[in-house]
Amino acid sequence: MINENIKEIIGKEYKCLNKGFVRLIDIMGDDSSIVQAARVSYGKGTKSVNEDLSLINYLMRNRHTSPFEMVELKFHIKLPIFVARQWIRHRTANVNEYSGRYSEMKNEFYIPESEQLRLQSAINKQGRSEELVDNETSDTVIEQMKNTQEFLFTEYENFLDKKIAREIARINLPLSTYTEWYWKIDLHNLFHFLELRLDHHAQYEIRVYGEVIADILKLAVPYAYTAFEDYMLNSVNLSKKELTALKEIISFDKFDQINFDSHRLKGRELSEFKEKIKKIINI
Amino acid sequence: MINENIKEIIGKEYKCLNKGFVRLIDIMGDDSSIVQAARVSYGKGTKSVNEDLSLINYLMRNRHTSPFEMVELKFHIKLPIFVARQWIRHRTANVNEYSGRYSEMKNEFYIPESEQLRLQSAINKQGRSEELVDNETSDTVIEQMKNTQEFLFTEYENFLDKKIAREIARINLPLSTYTEWYWKIDLHNLFHFLELRLDHHAQYEIRVYGEVIADILKLAVPYAYTAFEDYMLNSVNLSKKELTALKEIISFDKFDQINFDSHRLKGRELSEFKEKIKKIINI
Amino acid sequence: MINENIKEIIGKEYKCLNKGFVRLIDIMGDDSSIVQAARVSYGKGTKSVNEDLSLINYLMRNRHTSPFEMVELKFHIKLPIFVARQWIRHRTANVNEYSGRYSEMKNEFYIPESEQLRLQSAINKQGRSEELVDNETSDTVIEQMKNTQEFLFTEYENFLDKKIAREIARINLPLSTYTEWYWKIDLHNLFHFLELRLDHHAQYEIRVYGEVIADILKLAVPYAYTAFEDYMLNSVNLSKKELTALKEIISFDKFDQINFDSHRLKGRELSEFKEKIKKIINI
Amino acid sequence: MINENIKEIIGKEYKCLNKGFVRLIDIMGDDSSIVQAARVSYGKGTKSVNEDLSLINYLMRNRHTSPFEMVELKFHIKLPIFVARQWIRHRTANVNEYSGRYSEMKNEFYIPESEQLRLQSAINKQGRSEELVDNETSDTVIEQMKNTQEFLFTEYENFLDKKIAREIARINLPLSTYTEWYWKIDLHNLFHFLELRLDHHAQYEIRVYGEVIADILKLAVPYAYTAFEDYMLNSVNLSKKELTALKEIISFDKFDQINFDSHRLKGRELSEFKEKIKKIINI
Repeated sequence: MINENIKEIIGKEYKCLNKGFVRLIDIMGDDSSIVQAARVSYGKGTKSVNEDLSLINYLMRNRHTSPFEMVELKFHIKLPIFVARQWIRHRTANVNEYSGRYSEMKNEFYIPESEQLRLQSAINKQGRSEELVDNETSDTVIEQMKNTQEFLFTEYENFLDKKIAREIARINLPLSTYTEWYWKIDLHNLFHFLELRLDHHAQYEIRVYGEVIADILKLAVPYAYTAFEDYMLNSVNLSKKELTALKEIISFDKFDQINFDSHRLKGRELSEFKEKIKKIINI
Repeated sequence: MINENIKEIIGKEYKCLNKGFVRLIDIMGDDSSIVQAARVSYGKGTKSVNEDLSLINYLMRNRHTSPFEMVELKFHIKLPIFVARQWIRHRTANVNEYSGRYSEMKNEFYIPESEQLRLQSAINKQGRSEELVDNETSDTVIEQMKNTQEFLFTEYENFLDKKIAREIARINLPLSTYTEWYWKIDLHNLFHFLELRLDHHAQYEIRVYGEVIADILKLAVPYAYTAFEDYMLNSVNLSKKELTALKEIISFDKFDQINFDSHRLKGRELSEFKEKIKKIINI
Repeated sequence: MINENIKEIIGKEYKCLNKGFVRLIDIMGDDSSIVQAARVSYGKGTKSVNEDLSLINYLMRNRHTSPFEMVELKFHIKLPIFVARQWIRHRTANVNEYSGRYSEMKNEFYIPESEQLRLQSAINKQGRSEELVDNETSDTVIEQMKNTQEFLFTEYENFLDKKIAREIARINLPLSTYTEWYWKIDLHNLFHFLELRLDHHAQYEIRVYGEVIADILKLAVPYAYTAFEDYMLNSVNLSKKELTALKEIISFDKFDQINFDSHRLKGRELSEFKEKIKKIINI
Repeated sequence: MINENIKEIIGKEYKCLNKGFVRLIDIMGDDSSIVQAARVSYGKGTKSVNEDLSLINYLMRNRHTSPFEMVELKFHIKLPIFVARQWIRHRTANVNEYSGRYSEMKNEFYIPESEQLRLQSAINKQGRSEELVDNETSDTVIEQMKNTQEFLFTEYENFLDKKIAREIARINLPLSTYTEWYWKIDLHNLFHFLELRLDHHAQYEIRVYGEVIADILKLAVPYAYTAFEDYMLNSVNLSKKELTALKEIISFDKFDQINFDSHRLKGRELSEFKEKIKKIINI
């Protein structure tokens, strides 16, 4: 049941950050499974490839999300704990994580590259700015971070040598410690994950994983991924207030002169666009 | 812990359709609970009412959904089974339904008003058109529906008289039979429910319930509901294709002449709008 | 990634009731995937088949449910609406159902076999008794049911002929009407479904589907299914009260004379049993 | 809508560990809400207190979980990050956590009391043993832990002084750092949380929180909590294998001599017990 194109990347290790990775372990379904599930609603059988593509676009555009839930992906992921803590907030997924109660933690920690060592953003309270730390500070900080990690792991090993229970010995290990897990999620919820985690407001260290997963999806479900890019990721949502403002500088009288073909707008999609324009005019 | 304004509508029966209703049974939290939960993230305490309102708008605009999950509502609802079947597809909710296995079903059925007896839409494959059925047909159909419901209930009672198990006796009762349930859901998921069920593509018979619930929310969480209207319900999502088309008829050079104040766009919200405009220009 | 044994039953139609069916459409994983996911927690690699079996038993016994969530199954199911209404209460699943708004419903209805036409149970308020309806009544009732279904479908077609919108025309169709859906669920939640739906308190008409799904699982995940039978389905949960009562008639002094080998109790499992016995003694 | 008894503990800070706490912020419903929701299924109105108690017991015994979902609780909790990581695995809940991206972390860390500094268990691979570390080691380890935490916080502050973005500066903070969150969950899922987290296999540091929450529930939903203790927490689940072994030492012929009254077993509950005994005999 696995797409032939995808077979060769099953199990492949995609590097992330200094020691992390993403591996696609298994996948159930592909673009055609989305179509198959949607068609059970409409009581219709198989159609041409073109109609399939068009149906996937329609479903994505109109947020008919349940057919996308019919594709399921399972990943093996290695990631720093502070990234894992953001990741796990996505609740509609299945997880089996490496346990620091059962097993000894490994001597593996995240160290930012110097170009990721940025100043606190003044505008975005939750993020880093574009501004790099000066070279000297950067070198010092990274050196300090490494030394601290080394010290913490030595202390951890020292506690284990004293036979302290693992579940206690680990409590001073840092948030930069790597953990790993199996993570299984359906395509609809994965797109939602990507929408949030590919955003430039997302912390860089999780965005890196998002980008790798996006690359995998481009191979696994090319039609659905393109639809996701067109209708979700690169779409813009305009509030009522914003529409009333924007309205002032739109020349609606020139609407019919637009070359819709060149924008790949036709049929049902074009009608929907016209409905939206009408909504903006009447707002 | 209950908003004073809301106390008087607790338990009140809001009629829906010919025999249905919505009753708000209980509510946990109000606008201030959304703010309270958000502030734990930011590590900040109470602020002014104005800042609360502004924070709720910010959260809604940026789809920070978890603070809205901190408000919980419980309803008692009476509705036809075919509406219940659409309703139950919203999975993130708690339900206790009247059971036709335990108890006898009641002689209560949905009958459409004649103005709801519309022709099949040719454009929208899943809906009715604007076009009314002619009066004569309408009268006949409604008469037939009533007779059939009466006949079906008599047959059901006849089966029960023969001591046939209730769980079997009921199988030919129609989808128009009324059922009832307790339904508990958090505010974020309720907004999602409303976004879908207030839409003009939703079946009329469930939209009626959506409108009543919307009215209740206007009283229960006025700030959050206004934000929902501004940033979700009345917002327009434009795909990449649509934006490239629209771009042709926008005069970006006049952007700075817009009177943003008159559209209530300022501060962080205005910056976000400018970011979107930049995104459209660069698309 | 599909178990070779299972390939031949993919897509196969297992009949249920008079017109329903279950078809396994796709499956992600098998017994070894459960083990693989569990081992990531323990930080250990592949082991022998025996150790795998033993690990699955351990996980099931101790309700470590997340590794079972790593197997996902997708079914195509045709079932009467009253069964679908019970089924959908299991919320942790993905569903795409045939839509009576988009498409015309088909002339297919559930009719009970005469041996399923039972009297209302006096003890179990929600079920049928063992007692059959007498032959004459049974014949009459089944005949009436068929006639009613025929009549209702003719009326439905008649409404459609009048161009009444499908979403309205269908409201008097009975709960015995067949619908169909794609249904996707993980193995842990499927076991929970089976635990409830294989129970003799479950309505016969849904139990039939449960039994077919159980047969499929015996082929798809034989180790996990056996563990499910041993540790969930055929286990008995005894409340504190029941244990204090039972305690009176247990001869704990003979405990060590039990031939544990003959009951396949050894190692960690035997220790756990002894812990439970200690708990009962001290209750 | 809030139980009078519970009002006085709303907001009260229950201390946990060295710096943590649990505060009940809000509650929707009480024992009577469970009964109310169950009765909608049975189509019955209010009954006597005795019948309410008996119904709650029946629902719990037979795992009719949905009425328990109709009670919702919201807590404010302060806890070490390694505890938070176990806690968040309970997915059916709503969470707003303090953010180390938005705000500076505080100088607050978990330090175990010396009696909790135990040796690794040899039997239970994921836990500590009963055996205490010797006093000298214990003093040294705790001293080291404190020094390390102090050092790590100083380094964190030093990074912040250099204007390093908060989201990066924090990565070497330890898992013992305190965080806090609002956590909202329904009673059924909270009982499931407690079943796992009150168990002696749960890590001590999360069990402490479980015990405080249990105390709160004893006040908030006394009937439901007693039912939880009788039918879940203190029940014993015996597998098929264990039952066949136990059967050897049960004198079933003395069953009728049991004084069921003294064990509070009567009516429907006694019948259910007899059914279980029959199941054991026939296993």
